[in-house]
Amino acid sequence: MQRLARQWQRGGKKVVFVPTMGFLHRGHASLMARARKLAGRKGRVVVSVYVNPTQFGPNEDFAKYPRDVKGDQRLCRAAGVDVFFAPDDTEMYPADFSTAVQEENLSRGMEGAARPGHFRGMTTVVAKLFNAVLPTAAVFGAKDFQQAAVIRRMTRDLNFPVKIVVAPTQREADGLALSSRNKYLSTAQREQAAVLRRAIGRAQKAVARRPVAAAQLRRQTALLIAAQPEARLDYVEFFDPETLEPVKTVTHGAQMALAVFVGKTRLIDNEAL
Amino acid sequence: MQRLARQWQRGGKKVVFVPTMGFLHRGHASLMARARKLAGRKGRVVVSVYVNPTQFGPNEDFAKYPRDVKGDQRLCRAAGVDVFFAPDDTEMYPADFSTAVQEENLSRGMEGAARPGHFRGMTTVVAKLFNAVLPTAAVFGAKDFQQAAVIRRMTRDLNFPVKIVVAPTQREADGLALSSRNKYLSTAQREQAAVLRRAIGRAQKAVARRPVAAAQLRRQTALLIAAQPEARLDYVEFFDPETLEPVKTVTHGAQMALAVFVGKTRLIDNEAL
Repeated sequence: MQRLARQWQRGGKKVVFVPTMGFLHRGHASLMARARKLAGRKGRVVVSVYVNPTQFGPNEDFAKYPRDVKGDQRLCRAAGVDVFFAPDDTEMYPADFSTAVQEENLSRGMEGAARPGHFRGMTTVVAKLFNAVLPTAAVFGAKDFQQAAVIRRMTRDLNFPVKIVVAPTQREADGLALSSRNKYLSTAQREQAAVLRRAIGRAQKAVARRPVAAAQLRRQTALLIAAQPEARLDYVEFFDPETLEPVKTVTHGAQMALAVFVGKTRLIDNEAL
Repeated sequence: MQRLARQWQRGGKKVVFVPTMGFLHRGHASLMARARKLAGRKGRVVVSVYVNPTQFGPNEDFAKYPRDVKGDQRLCRAAGVDVFFAPDDTEMYPADFSTAVQEENLSRGMEGAARPGHFRGMTTVVAKLFNAVLPTAAVFGAKDFQQAAVIRRMTRDLNFPVKIVVAPTQREADGLALSSRNKYLSTAQREQAAVLRRAIGRAQKAVARRPVAAAQLRRQTALLIAAQPEARLDYVEFFDPETLEPVKTVTHGAQMALAVFVGKTRLIDNEAL
């Protein structure tokens, strides 16, 4: 991969990179379409498929995370991707691997608090993939808002010569954000999972009228989630989209993010209010 | 710097990088000569001069670390360096900087134990400088053996497309390793400072005859250092040069490293035994 990337550099080619964990769906396809557009006809688009073990906690779903290499390759081919890059664990993490990249401010709350070690594993693997693919730009989905913010910061702080592009979340008809993890849901759970987007819609409406206390929006969200028999709120936060600092009074332009267990499946979503 | 580096990449140029903290001496000049040779006539040599605050402890010599930009530029010009790169603190560490690169195995003992946070600051700034200069190779001095090992590991672990070259320590006539910190020494201290290399020479002779217990070599070294009125041993270690694991019995090929305070000045040295 790196040898090829070096050749592209000599050719002065734009290289646009979409890192993924595979089990690709329409959400990923939209990132690839964006990448294809950014790269232009002369540029190159690389998609990596790697389920990175270091960003999963010990009690998380690493082992059962869904995989479908054949399907992923088909989707990439259809999306006009130039290189399908699927490194394996032994080349990514040799036995004496001992280095970590860590963002230490934006990564503390929300997903960072709920999933200790998650962002550390994520920034480490993204730094590695950036160096393997040597892209001029990389496209991430907006579904994990905090992830995009952490990657943007890491990229700036370490001076990676990579432009970070964040593309909008793709949704099902009932508003459920596309995710490989939606596959885990039973039919009943799948219906209840629409509650995440519905909670965001409620908050958007409330804030459109007047500023609202975060505590009130939090209570309202908790009630809405609790009304779904298999749903359990993990967290909901209202925060400044730049600093990720929680706000006490939620005004237009604040960001809302939440994580909800539906059965054993943990789903996340976010939007600007 | 990065814009220039990108142009060089398109030209397929070799770019050889020598990161330094300035106050350049003959030791640095030997690194530049090595870089010049590696780059060839068509390649480029970049020297950075940056006294990186994050690799100094709160009670260390950051503020008084010697600086001489004019002298450094003269030396670089004489050495055939193409670019003298001297970034400042505000572009290296903006106020909301929040990312660290950390090696967590090789960096634990010796300098890592004696100087908490030192290697974390060092690997972070080297990662940043690699991304700013985008070199094909980088040259480091052998005087800090552990530093070279940590950088080699970080470079491999994060897949930086950079070849790490380690060039031999340059010494004064009495064996003292060249260092910008030698400037701190009084005349009397300067004479006593030769004890570091002398201690290594003693150990080399002992090990050349037969394997020796590390404990015995440690005692012998401590006595030799203690005989110098202004010298105080910080640590001495005997270890495997690949893993940096301490050895109990020191045989041919083991590495010896030591740190000694001479007055308030902390000096380090190392050699293969």
